[in-house]
Amino acid sequence: MKCTFLDVAPESDFSVQNLPYGIYSTDSMPEPRVGVAIGSAVLDMHALAVHGLFDEIEGLAAVQVFSQPQLNDFMSLGRPVWRQVRSALQDFLCNDGNAVRKRIVEVKSVTVPLSGVHMHLPARIGDYTDFYASREHATNVGMMFRGKDNALMPNWTHLPVGYHGRASSVVVSGTPLHRPNGQRRPDPSKPPVFGPSMRLDYELEMAFFVGPGNAQGTPLSLEQAEERIFGLVLMNDWSARDIQAWEYVPLGPFLGKSFGTTISPWVVTMDALEPFRVAQPVQDPTPLPYLCGTSAATALAGYDINLQVHIKPSNGEKFHLLTQSNLKHMYWSLRQQLVHHAINGCNMRPGDLCGTGTISGPTKESFGSMLELSWSGQSEILLDESGGITRKFIEDNDVIRLTGYCQADGFRVGFGECTGQILPPKNLAL
Amino acid sequence: MKCTFLDVAPESDFSVQNLPYGIYSTDSMPEPRVGVAIGSAVLDMHALAVHGLFDEIEGLAAVQVFSQPQLNDFMSLGRPVWRQVRSALQDFLCNDGNAVRKRIVEVKSVTVPLSGVHMHLPARIGDYTDFYASREHATNVGMMFRGKDNALMPNWTHLPVGYHGRASSVVVSGTPLHRPNGQRRPDPSKPPVFGPSMRLDYELEMAFFVGPGNAQGTPLSLEQAEERIFGLVLMNDWSARDIQAWEYVPLGPFLGKSFGTTISPWVVTMDALEPFRVAQPVQDPTPLPYLCGTSAATALAGYDINLQVHIKPSNGEKFHLLTQSNLKHMYWSLRQQLVHHAINGCNMRPGDLCGTGTISGPTKESFGSMLELSWSGQSEILLDESGGITRKFIEDNDVIRLTGYCQADGFRVGFGECTGQILPPKNLAL
Repeated sequence: MKCTFLDVAPESDFSVQNLPYGIYSTDSMPEPRVGVAIGSAVLDMHALAVHGLFDEIEGLAAVQVFSQPQLNDFMSLGRPVWRQVRSALQDFLCNDGNAVRKRIVEVKSVTVPLSGVHMHLPARIGDYTDFYASREHATNVGMMFRGKDNALMPNWTHLPVGYHGRASSVVVSGTPLHRPNGQRRPDPSKPPVFGPSMRLDYELEMAFFVGPGNAQGTPLSLEQAEERIFGLVLMNDWSARDIQAWEYVPLGPFLGKSFGTTISPWVVTMDALEPFRVAQPVQDPTPLPYLCGTSAATALAGYDINLQVHIKPSNGEKFHLLTQSNLKHMYWSLRQQLVHHAINGCNMRPGDLCGTGTISGPTKESFGSMLELSWSGQSEILLDESGGITRKFIEDNDVIRLTGYCQADGFRVGFGECTGQILPPKNLAL
Repeated sequence: MKCTFLDVAPESDFSVQNLPYGIYSTDSMPEPRVGVAIGSAVLDMHALAVHGLFDEIEGLAAVQVFSQPQLNDFMSLGRPVWRQVRSALQDFLCNDGNAVRKRIVEVKSVTVPLSGVHMHLPARIGDYTDFYASREHATNVGMMFRGKDNALMPNWTHLPVGYHGRASSVVVSGTPLHRPNGQRRPDPSKPPVFGPSMRLDYELEMAFFVGPGNAQGTPLSLEQAEERIFGLVLMNDWSARDIQAWEYVPLGPFLGKSFGTTISPWVVTMDALEPFRVAQPVQDPTPLPYLCGTSAATALAGYDINLQVHIKPSNGEKFHLLTQSNLKHMYWSLRQQLVHHAINGCNMRPGDLCGTGTISGPTKESFGSMLELSWSGQSEILLDESGGITRKFIEDNDVIRLTGYCQADGFRVGFGECTGQILPPKNLAL
């Protein structure tokens, strides 16, 4: 499929096969609204709705839904509606005979340049959950914390371990964050101390947005879950390892994570990712039936998504590669995560965000955090060939950038970037 | 202070000294709106605003704020505004010369009978956090899980341990919940099994609603926190102990809690609780400075609130007392919880809910959960004198009711009730 309406370079993340959704504003149009990225432009979905592009789609009040400052309303409509909108957009972009296309005299009236938009959080996130679904990451961290023999806890291969995260502090790519203060206990023989985290880390994750969800008390089957995931973003689950290590027993991570979590602004739909499905890793032992499903539609539950993390160190000029991984390594699939989450009757709502946990692969290059790359600070990570710039953890003013894409023959379905800078800690007036 | 406008019985929870806020509707007025409970009536705050009762209060768009279906807007205004509204209401209720009072011909035009209202969640809860702030409860649970010598983890006396909970499944008193299904492993030598929780429990808690909150990256001091707590409710943090025990390592409680959390509908403000302040338990070791504060205003950080839990067993006719406790036993104060939560820069928003954790006292009668009362199911809890009705955990169709009040000379400041019934599990069509 070729886009004939707008130029799209083959290496662009935002091909006509992608069409990710985001919330944008411009200097001259400061009210945030729904857009779709295509090449180096953003389609103004509200304008297209006014032109009648979505008039035939039942159950979609397009003018209203696409003028919202978040995607929750659109997410709530479900996969049949999402598919029809995708189809209408592709016809508009690729078919010279498209009726709305003929009526539009100037491309400019329905697009804005990508370079000129301000991006906002894609959704009002009701609840944010983070899973721990990479076996390699869980094993690496477990070895550091509990030794090789107890690396994976007994429950890990039976269920997708997860925890509730903090929704209020999820920010969109580009938002700087201050290094957090907190309690840590560097010397276990002495009392804890207070101050800035000395072991600040990134975590390479992806996260999905929930679509229609479920009513409280009513679980989802694996087949239902397949239809209720709206799309994926990149996520950096910033982690203050020293705060986390001291606080996390027995109720889990709290302030070590809740100072900020960064996501990429463009939500890539599951329909755009459909061609990139692959088998998920073999699960041994076989999970309980509610996590296995029955139909052929669920055979391929993994996604082949290349992932990268780069750092621009405060004392350097360039971005250096830190991690190269792939979502296909993830042990527990996205839909297994959603099914497990709702199995107790917990109600999932449109716009809820579920992180995968750090996506580490089998080799060292694919480790998705500095904790793993420096093996808990035991070794330096070299950032240039001369060895002049090294890190064990993130330093003030460093920039971390996550990117990701699916590669097809001649085009990409990509995620743009998820970037954040760590500013120095704020002085406290206590 | 005597209410001269409406009758209030001395044993009523809702004295003129209380004036708790809630969101109510009636059959004839189905749009939820803000009310204040007084005696056996509810004051229609929107009607009072239209009559001009709050016209003198700067920064309060009363007609608009009190017609909202949640209290978030009012909570965001801060303590000076809350105090002026309280004062205006007390003048209206107790002063025959009140100007608005004189204009109102019939009490009925600004009140509805408490018996005829439907109560809703008081706020749109952005994030819900649960602490673990009772030393007695943490010690009891720790002894059961890890033995007497490791009961309290090393961090417990240094910080208020807490975790993020699930906001979507917080429900208002009176909402029935289904017994959750999930994974548990009753026999550690065998694989886990799937099915309804067999160890379903209540937890006696209170919870505070956050007022104005803080910007991301900017912590709160103890003195600021004192001014940013809006008020308190009762909370039952339902817990599936068997699901929790299997899932919670290493990331904390998840599905064992997230099927539902019940709160009482009336939010009692901190100003109403002011006369019931008491010293909090002595903290040894002395916490780090950010948790200690400096001013005399913070000397009394505890609250003397009597708390009760009753059960109406499915095979009985009456409510039986299970727990008698008091918020004053709580080791970490409410404001210490809020300060700690924001110390890393985590942004708190108006309407965020923070639970105290189970409030157990020093004696067995004060244990705030069945886990503690039956000592992990080792002994039966007798519910009537003949011993014919017993429990180790909650059975299907049991009703659990939490109540609480502060007792003064001749009046009460009470919380109403926080009630929920556990329905049988739903059959899963998997």
